[in-house]
Amino acid sequence: MKTVKDYIRTIPDFPHEGIMFRDVTTLFSDPRGMRLAIDQMLAPYVGTRIDKVVGLEARGFILGGAVAHQLSVGFVPVRKKGKLPGKVISQDYSLEYGQATVEMHTDAIEAGEKILVVDDLLATGGTAEAGITLIERLGGEIVSCSFVVDLPELGGRKKLAGLGYDVHCLCDFEGA
Amino acid sequence: MKTVKDYIRTIPDFPHEGIMFRDVTTLFSDPRGMRLAIDQMLAPYVGTRIDKVVGLEARGFILGGAVAHQLSVGFVPVRKKGKLPGKVISQDYSLEYGQATVEMHTDAIEAGEKILVVDDLLATGGTAEAGITLIERLGGEIVSCSFVVDLPELGGRKKLAGLGYDVHCLCDFEGA
Repeated sequence: MKTVKDYIRTIPDFPHEGIMFRDVTTLFSDPRGMRLAIDQMLAPYVGTRIDKVVGLEARGFILGGAVAHQLSVGFVPVRKKGKLPGKVISQDYSLEYGQATVEMHTDAIEAGEKILVVDDLLATGGTAEAGITLIERLGGEIVSCSFVVDLPELGGRKKLAGLGYDVHCLCDFEGA
Repeated sequence: MKTVKDYIRTIPDFPHEGIMFRDVTTLFSDPRGMRLAIDQMLAPYVGTRIDKVVGLEARGFILGGAVAHQLSVGFVPVRKKGKLPGKVISQDYSLEYGQATVEMHTDAIEAGEKILVVDDLLATGGTAEAGITLIERLGGEIVSCSFVVDLPELGGRKKLAGLGYDVHCLCDFEGA
């Protein structure tokens, strides 16, 4: 039987030369792949209180919508700067070259809510850490961070775990 | 009991002065709202064959992920130009000022597959029509197009219906 990893294809030199891009669209477009991914993402949290799912733009929205619906909880997007229409809090984070900013609506999370963070891929963990910071600034409590793919060489998992966060990934790929 | 429309808030002057932005994030962040939206989106299609769900970037990913998971079918994203890593087909469409381009992986849909298109909001229908064109160029057959919000004054619903497509919207707002 195919595993989640078997459904993911690798595209060389995207978006830049030398990058092996791990493409989850082939996982999502397959009915068995999509079902397997969501079921496996949620398996560690059976019996765990989760009040909201936070998904990181943009592939984290696909997973986050499905996971939130499966749990019958609300979904909250972390978006790139300028995309959310209401009052937001912002968080800068470093990229390989330069900086980026993510935002969340200030009324999207209430103090004490238990939050599951989801995205497709964990690389350096920069975006995830920025999202976590936004959640915690609003008083949310991180239950766990769930990713389909881990790229261990980029250190995101170690970084998040080192900060005390629970991290689950369905598979990993060597080589960035 | 609150309806889907009751969960949607209006933000004046976003992204430009004079625009009344219909913000579905307050629908998605509420557990009852999210569940209600997905259940109502799918209600018209009980017993209908759907092979894949296509979601339009970016809020259509949240809905599309949930809808595809609920149906146990695959999810395919229509993305803005340059975001998809594999071989794509592209479609230009007109905006109020200028043009935009959306893309889909060429291997995302097989000829004869029955497709449900989802997005949060139907305005002029330009993005939806471009997405439909991509699907049909790959041989997919449109079952229906499902939106949370219709803005009837912008004519998208009439346009898509006039082209022969089935369209469902959960609510509408007067005023663009």
